[in-house]
Amino acid sequence: MLRGLPDGWISSNEGVETWSPFDVIGHLIHGEQTDWMPRARIILEYGETRAFDKFDRFAQFAAPNGRTLASLLDEFALLRQRNLEDLTALGLTARDLDRRGTHPELGVVTLRQLLATWTAHDLDHIVQISRVLSTQYADEVGPWRAYLRIISGTQG
Amino acid sequence: MLRGLPDGWISSNEGVETWSPFDVIGHLIHGEQTDWMPRARIILEYGETRAFDKFDRFAQFAAPNGRTLASLLDEFALLRQRNLEDLTALGLTARDLDRRGTHPELGVVTLRQLLATWTAHDLDHIVQISRVLSTQYADEVGPWRAYLRIISGTQG
Repeated sequence: MLRGLPDGWISSNEGVETWSPFDVIGHLIHGEQTDWMPRARIILEYGETRAFDKFDRFAQFAAPNGRTLASLLDEFALLRQRNLEDLTALGLTARDLDRRGTHPELGVVTLRQLLATWTAHDLDHIVQISRVLSTQYADEVGPWRAYLRIISGTQG
Repeated sequence: MLRGLPDGWISSNEGVETWSPFDVIGHLIHGEQTDWMPRARIILEYGETRAFDKFDRFAQFAAPNGRTLASLLDEFALLRQRNLEDLTALGLTARDLDRRGTHPELGVVTLRQLLATWTAHDLDHIVQISRVLSTQYADEVGPWRAYLRIISGTQG
């Protein structure tokens, strides 16, 4: 969806304190490193007795500069693949999925909810990336903007 | 994004008169067949003198039943690839892109706007598909729904 796009498309955002597609990929990488599988392991090892570490939603802005989007996409793909292999290797049962952990803000959550959120979180950011990209074309589409919910803003 | 997903994910929609991911792919196929490149050719051949044929937004519901999503995805990929090859073969100049045509409802549009809309239209439906898919997980994510804009509905 992003590979090979011109810089203007991947580095533009929706205004102050919003994220570009480049920022989003950095955020997804940080999630693979510190959120989903580490939290799954905390649930399996400690249950509710140890709260998850807080997730840093702004870690991607502290990462070293000079990375290319292609390099970030490669890193994300590799981390995701390894995490999915690790998840499969856990051989989780339905009973495992009902195990409970403690989210530092949300309180009690289950492993099943964590894994569902991993998926829905991807979709959330796919929406965000689509919206940011089409913002670049808000003028380019001319009169058709009336038909494009992503540009006209009539889409929830 | 869709290939290999269970039927429940690809055939569910957001309620009466909304589209499932399966419906969306049928709509995209119809666009490749009757909308984007045919309209580009009308602009190049007839300019503003011949309005585009109206696009049937519900054609996918009249198509033969019994198709699998995999088959629709294959057809879409093939049609898109051919259309992009045809577009490249036209060797459009900046001047060509400024050529004008007549949309049956929107009035005067340019070839440049048509091609920009082809792209933005994809993004519009990627958002729709993401939203429909995540609706399936609205309950599954439990307390995390508060953080997921695609489920909580706080995302424009």
